[in-house]
Amino acid sequence: MWERLRDKRMADKVVTAEEAAGWIENGMTIGLSGFTRAGDSKLVPVTLAERVKRDNQPFKVNVYTGASLGSEVDTVMAEADMVLKRLPFQTDATMRKKINDGSILFVDQHLSHTAELIRAGVMGPIDYAIVEAVAVTEDGMIIPSTSVGNSNIFVEQAKHVIIELNMAQTTELEGVHDVYTPGPQGMRGPIPLVSIDQRIGTLGIPVDPDKVRGIVITNMEDSPSTIVQPDEETAQIAAHLINFLREEVKAGRLTEKLAPLQSGIGSVANAVFQGFLDSEFNDLEVYSEVLQDSVFELMDAGKISFASGCSITLTADMAKHVFGNFAKYRDKLVLRPQEITNHPEIIRRLGLISINTALEADIYGNVNSTNVSGTKMMNGIGGSGDFARNARLGIFVTKSIAKDGKISSIVPFASHVDHTEHDVDIIVTEQGLADLRGLAPRERALKIIENCAHPLYKDQLRAYYEEALTRGGHTPHVLEKAFSWHARFAEEGTMLEKKPALSR
Amino acid sequence: MWERLRDKRMADKVVTAEEAAGWIENGMTIGLSGFTRAGDSKLVPVTLAERVKRDNQPFKVNVYTGASLGSEVDTVMAEADMVLKRLPFQTDATMRKKINDGSILFVDQHLSHTAELIRAGVMGPIDYAIVEAVAVTEDGMIIPSTSVGNSNIFVEQAKHVIIELNMAQTTELEGVHDVYTPGPQGMRGPIPLVSIDQRIGTLGIPVDPDKVRGIVITNMEDSPSTIVQPDEETAQIAAHLINFLREEVKAGRLTEKLAPLQSGIGSVANAVFQGFLDSEFNDLEVYSEVLQDSVFELMDAGKISFASGCSITLTADMAKHVFGNFAKYRDKLVLRPQEITNHPEIIRRLGLISINTALEADIYGNVNSTNVSGTKMMNGIGGSGDFARNARLGIFVTKSIAKDGKISSIVPFASHVDHTEHDVDIIVTEQGLADLRGLAPRERALKIIENCAHPLYKDQLRAYYEEALTRGGHTPHVLEKAFSWHARFAEEGTMLEKKPALSR
Repeated sequence: MWERLRDKRMADKVVTAEEAAGWIENGMTIGLSGFTRAGDSKLVPVTLAERVKRDNQPFKVNVYTGASLGSEVDTVMAEADMVLKRLPFQTDATMRKKINDGSILFVDQHLSHTAELIRAGVMGPIDYAIVEAVAVTEDGMIIPSTSVGNSNIFVEQAKHVIIELNMAQTTELEGVHDVYTPGPQGMRGPIPLVSIDQRIGTLGIPVDPDKVRGIVITNMEDSPSTIVQPDEETAQIAAHLINFLREEVKAGRLTEKLAPLQSGIGSVANAVFQGFLDSEFNDLEVYSEVLQDSVFELMDAGKISFASGCSITLTADMAKHVFGNFAKYRDKLVLRPQEITNHPEIIRRLGLISINTALEADIYGNVNSTNVSGTKMMNGIGGSGDFARNARLGIFVTKSIAKDGKISSIVPFASHVDHTEHDVDIIVTEQGLADLRGLAPRERALKIIENCAHPLYKDQLRAYYEEALTRGGHTPHVLEKAFSWHARFAEEGTMLEKKPALSR
Repeated sequence: MWERLRDKRMADKVVTAEEAAGWIENGMTIGLSGFTRAGDSKLVPVTLAERVKRDNQPFKVNVYTGASLGSEVDTVMAEADMVLKRLPFQTDATMRKKINDGSILFVDQHLSHTAELIRAGVMGPIDYAIVEAVAVTEDGMIIPSTSVGNSNIFVEQAKHVIIELNMAQTTELEGVHDVYTPGPQGMRGPIPLVSIDQRIGTLGIPVDPDKVRGIVITNMEDSPSTIVQPDEETAQIAAHLINFLREEVKAGRLTEKLAPLQSGIGSVANAVFQGFLDSEFNDLEVYSEVLQDSVFELMDAGKISFASGCSITLTADMAKHVFGNFAKYRDKLVLRPQEITNHPEIIRRLGLISINTALEADIYGNVNSTNVSGTKMMNGIGGSGDFARNARLGIFVTKSIAKDGKISSIVPFASHVDHTEHDVDIIVTEQGLADLRGLAPRERALKIIENCAHPLYKDQLRAYYEEALTRGGHTPHVLEKAFSWHARFAEEGTMLEKKPALSR
């Protein structure tokens, strides 16, 4: 343990999880490490939740994180009814249910924005930062584990810090992080990052030892990624996208090295990355949030030369492979705070190719990433807005239908808009790809319907659009029918119209 | 003239407007100077339009600009039916009509994005850049007049350049501009701007003399601004906003110097700025697109110490005053390209207070800035998205009702979404202000309805929201009624429900 806890000033701060959890009081705000299951504080929040359940007294705290936590933590906190406000992202089924019944207030933020709001004093003081570490250095630097997330801003802004020193995370992670924290707005310089492998910060999170109230020793692995392997449709999406990139190279707008790649989590993005395996593209770079299995597969294949991320989130097998051979990957990796991985300044400067998943898109290219049928929160916008708005190519992928064709992902009007027509460059489904750059709405509608919609729904979309054209306008719509597809799904269980298309 | 046309290599390039217009061929793309009526190329486009009318042959060009042009240019081009595609912003009634009947394709872009798309080769080659100048220097630098807009990127990327050397624009403008053009994405460094008065570029737009095909001498004033003076409601909006800023100072989140101010064009923004006249705030800074009358009034009153903009757009009287005493203002002004005034990197670094106008907002804080009733284009998103997303405070202002109460600006669901809930911090109407920062949707709805909606519509909004709550969800809605207010307005001429509110 002492080779991990190297700051002698903190030697007497080791406490049990129970003791540390006991410091958290009703009404407080806690900032937890963790980004997409990686590097989350695993023991203190769960211990706290168990205490709350046991006590059976009203007890609520605000819970701020990097992104989603491991499989247990959000579940247990939600079950304990201890979460007043949760931000900026989650993926937990139990918590989702409580968000959708209104008993947990969820603030769905761009992942680059949370740090800014905390720094500005808008989101209330953070009482406790609870962050996982692989080590604390001689000079009081917290070395994060498999993610950085918002931990640097939580530690900087919190009144107190609790460190979970996790013996199960390899000490080889030390040296992988690059922690850079901008100063207050109006008092900061440019963020100096100009290439994805550049180091601009410190190897860990600097902390005033007096602020560290306790260090809890843990020994728990990250929850493994549960990624779904590519299927026929996601492979088709990947093929359309790779073909498009090939055409961009031919047109002279990209080189064969492409541009730094960002991809959201999930099976489609994973499929796209796997598609690169058999492609002619080489020497690829990744500047993303989550480094998933496919990044390491592409490294093994010599396709990816460097990857900058905010977390390493792997399946159990891949974790064994990567952390068992970490020397092989260390020099090709850097983990940064999410404020940097997702910063508009950097995304636009580097000119990323950004691939994220849509829940649904409408005929004009507005994208819903968050609210099923406009109302039920899935996970949150995450970084998709940070990336899509500022990337060289803002790409959204989705299967054209869901629930065996009962839902069309291409609809007349997106039932919730997270990304507007101004921010969506490309939409890809297994049916094809719509390149919307430089197109007016009426041009966009034709491309999206013809290239991306499923054959089951094409006539229905054409009929809507033709009726809309009779009403006129820059963005023609039949407003009273704009959500009729969603209403039909709610009532009849399908977006398909019953009556057959009229014969002509 | 020769003291303005100082590059001897271009001495023989002076041509008539007719000759220059004659070079423009069917199918070409032209890039015109001009931002919010200021510094537009005034003679060649109009001469071209007249020729097209006269010839009465099919003739279409793509017209790219900075933002809106003076009162004549877009009108005459629209009347001549010579515009195939127009971007990124316009405010002309005749052109608007043709955009809305589908005969002109309008691409509604973030004003910071156009340069990036042209640079990347996505928006096709620019055949002719036609830019107004007050001078051409000895070493071939085009000194723009009252705006910079996209002129730098048009000149850089166009095959040919036509300069309108306007004798009616004061040569005292020379020295006011700061032209900085980022390199291609992935090959650029940070934009070094860290304070609003900093100069990072050149005094004009560098141009290869061989690319300059013609110089047309003109003598025409900018179209004057037609700003509406504050009325009771806009004064109330200003008062709410200034009071909010006062509270932010008290809370320690702002100093009395506030933060660099951006405001969209129009009477509300003008009213807010006039509200600063009688306020305790001092030493204010402006980092905006358009410098309107109120900026100079505040300078005269010693309230504004420096203003950085993309254009100077004034009423006729104020123009006489400002340009008649320009020595007084010169050192307190800089005009930059719109890619820099609107750049996410700079907006976020400086932490602007950003004030823009909404057409309508919904109960969750989604804002429509562009499409009346979701379909009819007004002007375009302009810079409002660049600013709102990245500002310290993204503020949207609107009167709570329009058309004598027949339209509510607060609606159940925005009929077009330009700014999502993730990007809208504050909504202000004459009724009050809703501070939405850090709030979940259900909290936002209550604040917006209670603080911002007009009494005429409060019960109707409450009834919608209460019914939505029975359906549940993170963002409760009654989708089949979400646009019923707009449908009612289309059918009955009012959003007000006929039946009186039920007595309780």
